[in-house]
Amino acid sequence: MSMPSSLLQRRAARLGPNVSTFYDTPLHILRGEGCWLWDADGRRYLDAYNNVPHVGHAHPRVVAAMSEQAAQLNTHSRYVHTGILDYLDRLTGLLGHGLDQAVMTCTGSEAMDVALRMAQAATGATGLIATDNTYHGNTSAVTALSTRRPPIGGRPPHVRLVPAPDALSGLDGDIFAAHVAEAATALQEEGFGVAALIVCPALANEGLPCPPAGFLQPAAAQVQKVGGLLIADEIQPGFGRLGSHWWGFEQQGLRPDIVCLGKPMGNGYPVAAAIGTAPVVSAFRTAFGYFNTFAASPVAAATATAVLDVLEEENLRQNAEATGAALLARMRSMHHPRIADTRGHGLFFAMEFQTQEGTPCPVTAKAVVEGLKARGVLAGAIGRQQHILKLRPPMVFGPAEADLLSTALQETLEALPDVP
Amino acid sequence: MSMPSSLLQRRAARLGPNVSTFYDTPLHILRGEGCWLWDADGRRYLDAYNNVPHVGHAHPRVVAAMSEQAAQLNTHSRYVHTGILDYLDRLTGLLGHGLDQAVMTCTGSEAMDVALRMAQAATGATGLIATDNTYHGNTSAVTALSTRRPPIGGRPPHVRLVPAPDALSGLDGDIFAAHVAEAATALQEEGFGVAALIVCPALANEGLPCPPAGFLQPAAAQVQKVGGLLIADEIQPGFGRLGSHWWGFEQQGLRPDIVCLGKPMGNGYPVAAAIGTAPVVSAFRTAFGYFNTFAASPVAAATATAVLDVLEEENLRQNAEATGAALLARMRSMHHPRIADTRGHGLFFAMEFQTQEGTPCPVTAKAVVEGLKARGVLAGAIGRQQHILKLRPPMVFGPAEADLLSTALQETLEALPDVP
Repeated sequence: MSMPSSLLQRRAARLGPNVSTFYDTPLHILRGEGCWLWDADGRRYLDAYNNVPHVGHAHPRVVAAMSEQAAQLNTHSRYVHTGILDYLDRLTGLLGHGLDQAVMTCTGSEAMDVALRMAQAATGATGLIATDNTYHGNTSAVTALSTRRPPIGGRPPHVRLVPAPDALSGLDGDIFAAHVAEAATALQEEGFGVAALIVCPALANEGLPCPPAGFLQPAAAQVQKVGGLLIADEIQPGFGRLGSHWWGFEQQGLRPDIVCLGKPMGNGYPVAAAIGTAPVVSAFRTAFGYFNTFAASPVAAATATAVLDVLEEENLRQNAEATGAALLARMRSMHHPRIADTRGHGLFFAMEFQTQEGTPCPVTAKAVVEGLKARGVLAGAIGRQQHILKLRPPMVFGPAEADLLSTALQETLEALPDVP
Repeated sequence: MSMPSSLLQRRAARLGPNVSTFYDTPLHILRGEGCWLWDADGRRYLDAYNNVPHVGHAHPRVVAAMSEQAAQLNTHSRYVHTGILDYLDRLTGLLGHGLDQAVMTCTGSEAMDVALRMAQAATGATGLIATDNTYHGNTSAVTALSTRRPPIGGRPPHVRLVPAPDALSGLDGDIFAAHVAEAATALQEEGFGVAALIVCPALANEGLPCPPAGFLQPAAAQVQKVGGLLIADEIQPGFGRLGSHWWGFEQQGLRPDIVCLGKPMGNGYPVAAAIGTAPVVSAFRTAFGYFNTFAASPVAAATATAVLDVLEEENLRQNAEATGAALLARMRSMHHPRIADTRGHGLFFAMEFQTQEGTPCPVTAKAVVEGLKARGVLAGAIGRQQHILKLRPPMVFGPAEADLLSTALQETLEALPDVP
């Protein structure tokens, strides 16, 4: 539990102020394996939070694929290499419905930045619609979609944010669609036109309301009716996280024009992609070309390929479905007056807390996150007021780990201080 | 020399149209080591172009550092890790003059995108000045500085491009500064104010005119006089490329407020940074926080640290200076009626070609690039009309490699078809 203050001082001196850490006493992690992390004191933590180590921390097969390729060659995509083509054949085969062409990038933020321009190039319009409680990335253009970090000089007028669906207020796809239609009309009237609706099919950053299948279809239809595209941000739900499906858009019955992939794609190696239909990618390539020095490299391809190999050979989507369902049932059996809702899909869970008056209760969420940490389990918080416990473990999280998590969560809830 | 057309068809099918390759017949590279690359037919090429494999392709020490760290841990910066702090202590020590704090990213484009916002957050102004023959990266915000890929809807009004210095027209720092001052005044009058001048101290993408020391000082002074910042794009000149100095800004006698680092930093691993003075980074962090999932990771730190180790232990800056000077002298002794100018700095060279009438001659530059390739040497072209031969080999390029390059270049020039 030691975290020398000198280490935090060094961090502030080199990285600047306001650089977030997790927990009251930040963790100093030195080693990872599977679902487990070890800190500098040798204490072991069950990782129930991190989705980047999708097939498990330091998976030997992924590390070997990366290392072997790096020892052979790692150069850019202006030379031809089959690694990225083989990978994309396989990946686009998993996506289906004409999502056939890719712009490879290094980060989900870059993929999203490209996706916005793909939509603008394909439609000739510039207007963008997103929810008012989201985050899609950190470039200048993409932060314009985020409520939390508005740009210097204010949000640009071609971005319209609509009320985010909320689990507790009831989920009505037609109401959400009506807001989207209103935003689309405004963008058309102001001369921007509608380039795209950008949405995570799991509404992950919106608090994971776990919308029923088809919830987003009316909104997508509103945008596509006026010539706008649908951009699915699959950075969190993609690659089997939801268990029942490989992609969030499948669960929602959507046919996005563009999907953005990131975090889990390389198990920590910086690789991401914006994948679209041929006409959409062609419009972007014709307008911009686009070259990304480090992307589409042989090492990125080898690493991402190994992730797919492990996902398939270890049946991790199926594990997410089975382990996730059993764990959700156990979580739903837990009771505490502060719990407003417990929900999940695959290996992605939310437990929402409210005060006695029915308002969001971030104090409880924080106490649960810290209580879990004290019991050796890593979790996080989401929601407009950070009042929702977020669990999103590596996909190798099995029944034994689910047991440990359940026990720790039950104990944490039982030991919660009395919160109004 | 085989490049099955099916491979190019697969590439177009998966990556879309207009995705550039090098050479009339693109190369299919399978292996790299030091300054050498091997294609699918086993043919060996001397790499006199790539700056990303800064300490040599597949350097075993860099590969080992990356692999060993990946096998231990690769998680994000919301946990504390000393790797990135140790690295930044060392890196900022090399930069000096208060460039003490870093925002780590995965790509140079992301670093530049951050740098623009750093300047805007620190100054409260939004206006940006760059040259009219440059490229600083590929995000939406950064492409606004590029002449070649204007954004959909046109260049935003807060960006002003000034005439790029040109080697053949004569290099007068006061004239360049006068253009910058004019742009600054216009931005002030239009209410944007001046956030920053963004410039590569070697003017690499402007055609590497090799400005004399101090050339950029008057322009920097004009911007700083009105409260704007100086952003040095060190993605190409940084890390010793120029031989005489670790950084391009040192050679120019500049004190930038922000430097952006990228390509060579991780020898191909996606790592980059925007490094600024404490007040500038603080302003950015206060306004934006900024979190980049894959950046500042233990693997990024380990890999970038190994690059510094090799640079220092193999004395590669010194090699760039000595080998570069000798090679430049040999290149300057070569004569051909199409050569307008031969110049260089460290291991960075330009040979500019013109027609009999004194206009840029891209046909000759292309013929030289293809002629070198036919002789087993990889080079590229830059310049407003791609009429300048660009040589920018890995930093392990020694006297033996310089000999091979010189011979191939001499033979190529002698064998050039008669170009008007």
